[in-house]
Amino acid sequence: MDNLKVIRTVSEMQSWSADQHNLGLSVGCVPTMGYLHAGHQALIRESGRRADRTVMTLFVNPTQFAPHEDLARYPRDFAGDCQKAGAAGAAVVFAPGVDDMYPAGYQTYVTVDEVSQTMEGAVRPTHFRGVATVVLKLFNAVRPDVAVFGEKDYQQLAVIRRLTLDLDLGIDIVGLPTVREPDGLAMSSRNVYLKPEERAAALAISRALFAAQAAVKAGAADPKQVAADAAAAIAGAGLAVDYVEVRDAATLAPLDAITGPGRILAAARIGSVRLIDNMAL
Amino acid sequence: MDNLKVIRTVSEMQSWSADQHNLGLSVGCVPTMGYLHAGHQALIRESGRRADRTVMTLFVNPTQFAPHEDLARYPRDFAGDCQKAGAAGAAVVFAPGVDDMYPAGYQTYVTVDEVSQTMEGAVRPTHFRGVATVVLKLFNAVRPDVAVFGEKDYQQLAVIRRLTLDLDLGIDIVGLPTVREPDGLAMSSRNVYLKPEERAAALAISRALFAAQAAVKAGAADPKQVAADAAAAIAGAGLAVDYVEVRDAATLAPLDAITGPGRILAAARIGSVRLIDNMAL
Repeated sequence: MDNLKVIRTVSEMQSWSADQHNLGLSVGCVPTMGYLHAGHQALIRESGRRADRTVMTLFVNPTQFAPHEDLARYPRDFAGDCQKAGAAGAAVVFAPGVDDMYPAGYQTYVTVDEVSQTMEGAVRPTHFRGVATVVLKLFNAVRPDVAVFGEKDYQQLAVIRRLTLDLDLGIDIVGLPTVREPDGLAMSSRNVYLKPEERAAALAISRALFAAQAAVKAGAADPKQVAADAAAAIAGAGLAVDYVEVRDAATLAPLDAITGPGRILAAARIGSVRLIDNMAL
Repeated sequence: MDNLKVIRTVSEMQSWSADQHNLGLSVGCVPTMGYLHAGHQALIRESGRRADRTVMTLFVNPTQFAPHEDLARYPRDFAGDCQKAGAAGAAVVFAPGVDDMYPAGYQTYVTVDEVSQTMEGAVRPTHFRGVATVVLKLFNAVRPDVAVFGEKDYQQLAVIRRLTLDLDLGIDIVGLPTVREPDGLAMSSRNVYLKPEERAAALAISRALFAAQAAVKAGAADPKQVAADAAAAIAGAGLAVDYVEVRDAATLAPLDAITGPGRILAAARIGSVRLIDNMAL
């Protein structure tokens, strides 16, 4: 922690990374929007197992928020984040300013077409364009050998895998299972928004997904029925369901039947808070 | 020439480039679609002055052609191109296959918004998306320190400068003046399409742009009038004018008056051949 280095500019980040590579050291990258929880720390520790030096990026990226979304109130705690990143083994926190990432005249965007179009992409039309663009820029700044992401944002992970492959970035993309609270709620920086009664109702999401997992294990094979049952359970707890979908685990394409590896993905709103979760089927 | 190396895959290209950098050698890149003329060779020689090793990329990129355009008949001469590239000092010709650049499932594209929207971008709506995407992929394969482009495709050069800046690629982008035939015609691989009488009529483009240059030097300052005079001269020679525009030389934004560095850009069709040209004002 005492050795944690904070880097604020792309150019300084690039030269730090070049120095590590010149020393023969590999670099891992864990992109975050800050407000760290145990899930982020698990990603940093995994990066530490796979690379000699780990950079945690901390950037609340405005281009992945729509105008009506929660950019302005997104929770922030820079000092606490540095403490947690250092404790988990990060060597660097890369926290560029918005003006350094998107200077005046900025106009270049990356789109990953098919995998971005459904689910989160349908509800949040420019979200994945913002994600793909900022992740490419963060990769170009950190120049990592490996990057570690949580499966909590499963569709995002699919977008980043495709981007990395399509643009020949040569970065090993690692996905880690979602870290959950003891009662099953997926850890999220946005959980801090939940009032106690909302926090209790929010459990309906993970419960419905665990139930779907159990149903498929017991033989359920109709993706539409599995998704509909989970959606009904979530709606029954008073949440507004954005979507519940059963998809191919790799391509996120719709399935006719659950035969190979599938994934159930859900998004629902409770009060003003929007939560997402997903599980393997 | 005897030492010219032909590389066919992205992965081999990346490892060749890494080897040069590990040896402390810099790498220059000259992207082309082949069918080399003296203009391309000037770019290769310029790269040789700026970098220790030069890679000429040769890839007729399908994603920058619209369905009705000349992809299928685009002129090709691989053996001749290798001879000319080697003679100009290239160390490598990187000629990947379409399947290596765009494997099944490919779906990632780069857009450079504002500078892509007018002129060539208005006439050819997905052209610059194709250009920006392939140039980023070629850069990610070659990992050059410097890349040299011709000013013949001036708007393309502006798109690539913006892409390189916005995505923090750290590559020095060099633009070289258009190489012309003795009578003024801008050299282009597409000139081979011109029948003798079309070749003669095509001269109206460069003549009109030289006349605009002279008019501005003599005090003409109204961009609309300068453009309209050039368009009238080109149309008067029997060509179909796609556009003639006077723009800011750096941003390509429209100008109210020609005060700082300006650029006149034109596109016109003669028979089935489409030609572009531009000059400094």
